[in-house]
Amino acid sequence: MRAVIMDTPGQIRVTDREDPEIVEPTDAVIRLTATCICGSDLWPYRGVEPVDHTLMGHEYVGVVEEVGSEVSTVKPGDFVVGSFVISCGVCEICRSGYPSKCIHASFVHAGIGTQAQKARIPFADGTLVATPGQPAEDLIPSLLAASDVLGTGWFAADAAQTGPGKTVAVVGDGAVGLMGVLAAKQMGAERIIAMSRHEDRQALAREFGATDIVTERGEEGAAKIRELTDGLGAHSVIEAVGTEESLMQAIHSTRGGGHIGFVGVAHGVSLPMEAVFFAEVHLHGGPAPVRRYLPELIDLIWDRTIDPGRVFDLTLPLEEAAEGYAAMNERRATKVLLTV
Amino acid sequence: MRAVIMDTPGQIRVTDREDPEIVEPTDAVIRLTATCICGSDLWPYRGVEPVDHTLMGHEYVGVVEEVGSEVSTVKPGDFVVGSFVISCGVCEICRSGYPSKCIHASFVHAGIGTQAQKARIPFADGTLVATPGQPAEDLIPSLLAASDVLGTGWFAADAAQTGPGKTVAVVGDGAVGLMGVLAAKQMGAERIIAMSRHEDRQALAREFGATDIVTERGEEGAAKIRELTDGLGAHSVIEAVGTEESLMQAIHSTRGGGHIGFVGVAHGVSLPMEAVFFAEVHLHGGPAPVRRYLPELIDLIWDRTIDPGRVFDLTLPLEEAAEGYAAMNERRATKVLLTV
Repeated sequence: MRAVIMDTPGQIRVTDREDPEIVEPTDAVIRLTATCICGSDLWPYRGVEPVDHTLMGHEYVGVVEEVGSEVSTVKPGDFVVGSFVISCGVCEICRSGYPSKCIHASFVHAGIGTQAQKARIPFADGTLVATPGQPAEDLIPSLLAASDVLGTGWFAADAAQTGPGKTVAVVGDGAVGLMGVLAAKQMGAERIIAMSRHEDRQALAREFGATDIVTERGEEGAAKIRELTDGLGAHSVIEAVGTEESLMQAIHSTRGGGHIGFVGVAHGVSLPMEAVFFAEVHLHGGPAPVRRYLPELIDLIWDRTIDPGRVFDLTLPLEEAAEGYAAMNERRATKVLLTV
Repeated sequence: MRAVIMDTPGQIRVTDREDPEIVEPTDAVIRLTATCICGSDLWPYRGVEPVDHTLMGHEYVGVVEEVGSEVSTVKPGDFVVGSFVISCGVCEICRSGYPSKCIHASFVHAGIGTQAQKARIPFADGTLVATPGQPAEDLIPSLLAASDVLGTGWFAADAAQTGPGKTVAVVGDGAVGLMGVLAAKQMGAERIIAMSRHEDRQALAREFGATDIVTERGEEGAAKIRELTDGLGAHSVIEAVGTEESLMQAIHSTRGGGHIGFVGVAHGVSLPMEAVFFAEVHLHGGPAPVRRYLPELIDLIWDRTIDPGRVFDLTLPLEEAAEGYAAMNERRATKVLLTV
């Protein structure tokens, strides 16, 4: 099969690899229909995370080719969406709604790699969800988005306790932030303030449900949010960047007792706890428990209630993955879909 | 009147001051019955926070002497318990349950000072709660505890989502941690693990409801909590210290998706956000919204359901405040009550 390898930072190659096979009775092997490039794939690309001839990719939709003897919820021929975290689905942590912290959890990007024609997915029952049938072609980008970027934005909105009557501020206008806007809208938020200084992303944010745009950043951005909310701050804030500035912007944009859902991976960031203490907000975040939300997200996509696939603004064949990475790295694209 | 002044770090003096008077129509003047010394009073005592001839004290119970023309819920002669944060009780933030973040919030220790014979309490309706009648003498320590240390432990237990079926770990065996144990017990926690290496505090923790004692600290302490919880970590963790070590101990003692209530003031502490991210816990804390809990806490004390006053292990007259500070500073006492 063909697969994307990152040899060293910035060096992307599409090459031949052995086809994956069933190893454990709980495995499935899937043939990918589409995959994509994540903002987090840019960390090794930029040399911020280590990389050494690494199989890339952790977002995926496709068709089941083969399953192990203990797999019972998906079967060959099923079209499936999977989480970017492998999870057993039966441990106490999975059952509590945190498959991303499953006692058997592992990251798909660490050793599997779904920027490829095929992939072996361990714990298939706990990781994959079958769609109601074979999807129409135009639903595939949205189903793919559910695998990570939509699931992550959804988790952020949920962690921020978005809901009816709430004012929600979204820090970060990347794909996850935009999905956070969509999720907040779907959850019934009254007012959704997208923080963005890029016209194309502002337009998409409005399409997804943003009612206000704030272009200021950092403390100025937080001051603007407070100004828009009678000096109180937003009830719910989605943090989808992961820098100290963006986290402090989120904290100072939230009213006392309000909720922050943070999903930006905070590499090497230290947060001043005195500020967190006196802000008296709720903080919750981490790798999104996407598997928890997949059944609901698939239904919303299947019914064409939501169209998260609009977040992809560049589609390329898998063989042109290197150009996809370059486009995202240079911010020529928000999110790149790779057809397999 | 007589009042406690800290001139410089470690220099405590009891001196004459002018009696406070009604200034605003929302004020009350109270005659203190009892007050106490807080762990946080040791910050300026040790020179960690600035101090300059400062009126000390923020915990208080007493009898209302006089009220302003707009005060309607307390009247002269009422016995009252007050929060350590002044709050209006009517703004949107107060009504949402966060009087500690009231738009008019101010700290009693900053300018009022209740280690004194009398005090002027602004926003009396939003800050004070009258007891059902004049309390029996032996209830006074417990009512005083409600003013901060019990209210703070209660908030920590609530923020940690303590409840039936939950395993709760308590980091910190000071007065607040011990009150957290009491609160967790009262909220129906199944198992309460107190982290303490002091025999007298272990004994009090058991009396308040602790089912297990862990003497290890830091990462060793967290490993012990995971060992006691099938490798998963506690559902709920109360953090009542406020150092980086204690916060990381709390984070690594909590299962994925679990809740941490933190109430230790984290002076100058920075938290590594990558660890927080991958732990995927809920974090909530800050200055406790004591006023929210006061009616319930007063009822529980009045009915003799709880006896938080047992946390005081030294009682001195106000005139001997200096000895009280020294005893707490040298850890000869956990919590000092001053009779007025």
